[in-house]
Amino acid sequence: MDDFVCTLKAGAVTRVRFTDMKGLSEHLSSISSALFVADENSSYAIPENLSDRCLVLSSGEEHKNYDSLFKIIRKALGLKLSRSSRFVGVGGGVVSDMTAFASSVYMRGAKLTIVPSTLLSMVDASLGGKSAIDFDGVKNLVGTFYPADDVIIVPALLKTLPEGEFLSGLGEVIKHAFLTKDKSLYHFLLENKDGIMARDEETLGKMVELSLKVKKEYIEKDPEEKLGIRSALNLGHTFAHALESITNYEVKHGIAVAWGLEMALAMGVEMAVTPADLKESADGLLSLYGYDTSLRIEKDKVPIFRSYKEKDKKRDSSGVQFITLSGWGRYVKVVPDDNLIAKLVAKV
Amino acid sequence: MDDFVCTLKAGAVTRVRFTDMKGLSEHLSSISSALFVADENSSYAIPENLSDRCLVLSSGEEHKNYDSLFKIIRKALGLKLSRSSRFVGVGGGVVSDMTAFASSVYMRGAKLTIVPSTLLSMVDASLGGKSAIDFDGVKNLVGTFYPADDVIIVPALLKTLPEGEFLSGLGEVIKHAFLTKDKSLYHFLLENKDGIMARDEETLGKMVELSLKVKKEYIEKDPEEKLGIRSALNLGHTFAHALESITNYEVKHGIAVAWGLEMALAMGVEMAVTPADLKESADGLLSLYGYDTSLRIEKDKVPIFRSYKEKDKKRDSSGVQFITLSGWGRYVKVVPDDNLIAKLVAKV
Repeated sequence: MDDFVCTLKAGAVTRVRFTDMKGLSEHLSSISSALFVADENSSYAIPENLSDRCLVLSSGEEHKNYDSLFKIIRKALGLKLSRSSRFVGVGGGVVSDMTAFASSVYMRGAKLTIVPSTLLSMVDASLGGKSAIDFDGVKNLVGTFYPADDVIIVPALLKTLPEGEFLSGLGEVIKHAFLTKDKSLYHFLLENKDGIMARDEETLGKMVELSLKVKKEYIEKDPEEKLGIRSALNLGHTFAHALESITNYEVKHGIAVAWGLEMALAMGVEMAVTPADLKESADGLLSLYGYDTSLRIEKDKVPIFRSYKEKDKKRDSSGVQFITLSGWGRYVKVVPDDNLIAKLVAKV
Repeated sequence: MDDFVCTLKAGAVTRVRFTDMKGLSEHLSSISSALFVADENSSYAIPENLSDRCLVLSSGEEHKNYDSLFKIIRKALGLKLSRSSRFVGVGGGVVSDMTAFASSVYMRGAKLTIVPSTLLSMVDASLGGKSAIDFDGVKNLVGTFYPADDVIIVPALLKTLPEGEFLSGLGEVIKHAFLTKDKSLYHFLLENKDGIMARDEETLGKMVELSLKVKKEYIEKDPEEKLGIRSALNLGHTFAHALESITNYEVKHGIAVAWGLEMALAMGVEMAVTPADLKESADGLLSLYGYDTSLRIEKDKVPIFRSYKEKDKKRDSSGVQFITLSGWGRYVKVVPDDNLIAKLVAKV
């Protein structure tokens, strides 16, 4: 595990560091003027002596709203934080997205540390500067681009993560494996299943590092998702978001992404864009880790796949685009026919 | 009046343009996907045919809160705006600060046009990227740095501005006159009183241009107020904010700034920092335009000047700093003794 930096805009550098529980405790205790935000699942990671500077939110996406945001801002105000103070989010994607948003708007921007406590947030929310809250039922409607300058990865935090959460994060890791021409993450996943599933700290740290470095390639080229490069990271996500919506979010995000990856590559093969052996590599890796890609949905739900995409923040005027791959790390946007979507996702 | 551009960060250029009512109407009508935000005083400037895309907020600082913010975001959502749509704020500082904030957080950032309708917002809020709402009684606690790419200055909008509002804006203009080594704005103000007070469009346009170009000098060097350069624009503001607070905002902002300018220079003279003839130039200009700088406050209110500064977003650890001038456009930060503050601002 090697520390590295990611530069998202002029003067805004994210330093990603790897440490253990002791190192985390020392690091958090060393911050002089800070507010620590966690949820019920992650607050244990914040040292006892910092508890008066700590806000513990209720867990869950349903709390990713302005009520929680206001709690963070009021706590910061109560602690008399200034814009040179630091907001520290310790938790999963909900905590880190909200803490980042609060930090970005408090006095027009305070400092920000993210300590992701789930595999999904380690490989996704921690890096890239997206902050948000949900609003009026729309996910991430209100937010900013505001990179943390400080991301602390503590693989030891994954020891107690429930299996479903772990597999959810792993779905995003597997997606990243196909988004780079360098197959090192792919081979690492093929060769280290035992260490990964046993939550070996060293193995997980290396895996997170490889996965974050794939994300880094895309976000550094297109920090605010304006050039159509960063959006390649949404490979599988149009399918995934629709599936999450149809199942009322009972299918966890990264598990939906794993399924969406399979659908996106199957779509690519059908459209003669994706080489069959690339899809077979994905099939192999997904089944090695036990993902069920055979899930199909009721026919009457198929229009949701189209409407979901139309609501998407990343929509543009050229129609409903899906991302697929034309090779390892070679993303391409396609506009599939509705009948093809139905053929891929619907029960026969 | 010449259009110009201001570059606040890589890739973020504000284009400032000058036009008349007809030009404004044409410009607003030409925007394809937009939400127009105004208040009761400024909505007349938005062409009738755009009314279904227009949100009219209640006027006044007391509405600069998250309720208004949510109204803007809900209207945008109702209009199905995407992040490539444009938020257009037509109004004074309250409308432009809130529209800018809403634009900066809607889907992590939509496009932004500001059409300032008051002199104060033309010379201050329109340029520089500060967006905000008040929160729990703290002014501008929650906000972002988010420069409009498009600022439209329409001097004709000032025709109907109440006299007090006009003089409030002029207070900031006079402050700007002393913040530049180039005395062109100072001489313009000395020589064009009649045209200015008669609200001659051409004269006002030129004055706004000269004033904005002073602000541009500072904000381009320090866009997010991190280097101690942009904060020079707060000349007179520590005194002004305290006065506004003491008088419960009955003294308008720019009028308080004019008074604060006088106090800051008097302080500088007392501390042997400011040349006496510089203060005399300010005295002369302020009295030419009828500002009353003789106002003094009750002795028991003096501590507010200190505590106000301590609450300030721009505070740092080196004590309570005030800005004054050591020459034309040469700002300096000083730490005055409490007794000196009392001597300057209190009734004897």
